[in-house]
Amino acid sequence: MSQIASAAASVIDLAQALIACPSVTPAQGLVFDCLEAQLAPLGFAVTRFVRGEAPDGPVENLYAVRRGPEGSRHFAFAGHVDVVPPGDGWTSAPFAPEVRSAPGGDLLYGRGAVDMKGSIAAMIAAAREIPAEAGTLSFIITGDEEGPARYGTVALIEHMREAGEVPDVIVVGEPTSVNRLGDMMKIGRRGSVNIFLTVEGVQGHVAYPHLADNPITKLVAMLAELKALALDDGTDWFQPSNLEVTDLTVGNPAHNVIPARAEARISIRFNDTHTGAGLAERVSAIAAKHGGTARALISGEAFLTPPGPFSTLLAEAIRAETGIDPELSTSGGTSDARFLKDVAPVIEFGLCNATMHKRDEAVAVDDLDLLARIYRRAALAALGAGQ
Amino acid sequence: MSQIASAAASVIDLAQALIACPSVTPAQGLVFDCLEAQLAPLGFAVTRFVRGEAPDGPVENLYAVRRGPEGSRHFAFAGHVDVVPPGDGWTSAPFAPEVRSAPGGDLLYGRGAVDMKGSIAAMIAAAREIPAEAGTLSFIITGDEEGPARYGTVALIEHMREAGEVPDVIVVGEPTSVNRLGDMMKIGRRGSVNIFLTVEGVQGHVAYPHLADNPITKLVAMLAELKALALDDGTDWFQPSNLEVTDLTVGNPAHNVIPARAEARISIRFNDTHTGAGLAERVSAIAAKHGGTARALISGEAFLTPPGPFSTLLAEAIRAETGIDPELSTSGGTSDARFLKDVAPVIEFGLCNATMHKRDEAVAVDDLDLLARIYRRAALAALGAGQ
Repeated sequence: MSQIASAAASVIDLAQALIACPSVTPAQGLVFDCLEAQLAPLGFAVTRFVRGEAPDGPVENLYAVRRGPEGSRHFAFAGHVDVVPPGDGWTSAPFAPEVRSAPGGDLLYGRGAVDMKGSIAAMIAAAREIPAEAGTLSFIITGDEEGPARYGTVALIEHMREAGEVPDVIVVGEPTSVNRLGDMMKIGRRGSVNIFLTVEGVQGHVAYPHLADNPITKLVAMLAELKALALDDGTDWFQPSNLEVTDLTVGNPAHNVIPARAEARISIRFNDTHTGAGLAERVSAIAAKHGGTARALISGEAFLTPPGPFSTLLAEAIRAETGIDPELSTSGGTSDARFLKDVAPVIEFGLCNATMHKRDEAVAVDDLDLLARIYRRAALAALGAGQ
Repeated sequence: MSQIASAAASVIDLAQALIACPSVTPAQGLVFDCLEAQLAPLGFAVTRFVRGEAPDGPVENLYAVRRGPEGSRHFAFAGHVDVVPPGDGWTSAPFAPEVRSAPGGDLLYGRGAVDMKGSIAAMIAAAREIPAEAGTLSFIITGDEEGPARYGTVALIEHMREAGEVPDVIVVGEPTSVNRLGDMMKIGRRGSVNIFLTVEGVQGHVAYPHLADNPITKLVAMLAELKALALDDGTDWFQPSNLEVTDLTVGNPAHNVIPARAEARISIRFNDTHTGAGLAERVSAIAAKHGGTARALISGEAFLTPPGPFSTLLAEAIRAETGIDPELSTSGGTSDARFLKDVAPVIEFGLCNATMHKRDEAVAVDDLDLLARIYRRAALAALGAGQ
């Protein structure tokens, strides 16, 4: 059995307790028991529910809220307790958290240390230090952010809509810091769409090309045109959108045969001057021009929480605790912020991401305390309760 | 045991005897026994030898010669007794020759009926009707034309060189007729080269393309440039050379990953304005320009036996027997004529090719007799012996 930390535990105890609950995506059960055991004593009303079926489920989710005085503001912490598979080659067992001393200070090792059980431990520690009368606090925690994410945060948002829960702002605890805790927060993310291109031709002998119709010829012309598209020049907050061809598939072993079909897959990471559907339509038109078809799978739309009071108060909390002026970035992959931005302004901020998804994932023990203080300071500011 | 026809057998008996000897490429043994049993009584000195090892061998070959008077001309028949695998779905067993009546006349069914045991039967029947004093006659017969052809006609040519056998002209019995026996002969063939293109890149996350190097981007640009090459406009006797991309290989299942390597295969069928090596060099230069490499596998060089006395006498023999004026073509795939052209002027002429390599391969029984008469007439003319 995994240990479940007491309500008075320190941030590192909380983090260790969470890491000790194996929770490879999609997570259910024990890790949520551990989380609930921390939040309930702090006065949170905890709702847990399981959604979905194989292959993308079932997935457990947790929504916890501690209501402030009538009419008070509502600050939400969001995140996930599932982790990516540990893989091989760890120095210590990935789900047996271990503190080891290092030149820069103690490090806590374990899968999820930075992505993102450490952040969740810091959120809980912060919540403990925020008086209930400061305002409404909530936790939006899913067991599937690292997987298909079909029954995770999406289901939580549905639950919150039905329950009439509307935070004013949301902080997602993704590991956004790069070299030092506090050096970067994410005020937006690019959107992502995968598009599957297919050209059907007519098979035939390569010596008689006039009797065949080579789909590769059309696919190559299509891809050349797609790759030459200038999508945009970027914006104040986003780098230019980018298209990559990520796979080509024909699978024709016969040297003297023109194949019947050729396929490609492209990935577009796009900024907020586009929508996934709009890009899919443009690509479809180019595919059709070359005799092919396109099927789009939109992973997420681009979003931006424009710099303003929210980013300013979070940056000030970071600066007050660390002395660092965080960079406001929109770089990197996608996160559940892509869903939460439909609920309220959302910013991502968390631990240093150097070891995330790698073996020997580790967090500086000092950063856990520091992050808890930043979260507390930011939440109080957002609730209008000051320090 | 398969039947072996007597020396006095008709063309159809000879064809049936050959078809009844299963000889899926590479062929050895029985089918050569059958052939030798036909040629030896006609006065041919028969040499048989086996060459090569797995995977491209062993392969049996046969060279038979009946020498004419001192200083006489030398006419060679060339061909193969191996056949492509029969596949499924035949109406009668592929190696149990069967004559069935049809609206246009009787048809003989069996694997190899047109490609090219029927032609070899016609050659033997023709040889029987050519007096020894007309000149030197030979048979250059391999057991591997349909396979890799590494130890087949190439080995026969080596044997002939060592033995000082130099025909003046060679007729290859490939099924060159299209709709009616005599409507087409081949005075040349395009060359063929397969080129394998590889681009090595640097794998990475699709969200961080600046940290990766997408090999597909380069491959697509390379293929677009290759496909846009105008190789030539054709010649009096050849259609324009043609380049087809026949395969694309990446094999990257991860939607968010830029792959490390991309590959393509191209096939160029080229006329006698090019060489395989010259084309390989041009493609290599374009591949290098786009950061890739090219590896060429030349299947055969283009060749042309320019229209002249040899094509004229063969066309006259066809016209005399069928009333048809044959088209002189260089179309289609490759054949062993690509090797034999180094020995002597070579022209391919044989049965109708509609059913070659297909199930229920069949030859019109009347065409077998007609082809024997054409071969006899052409050989006599080439030997300078007239009718």
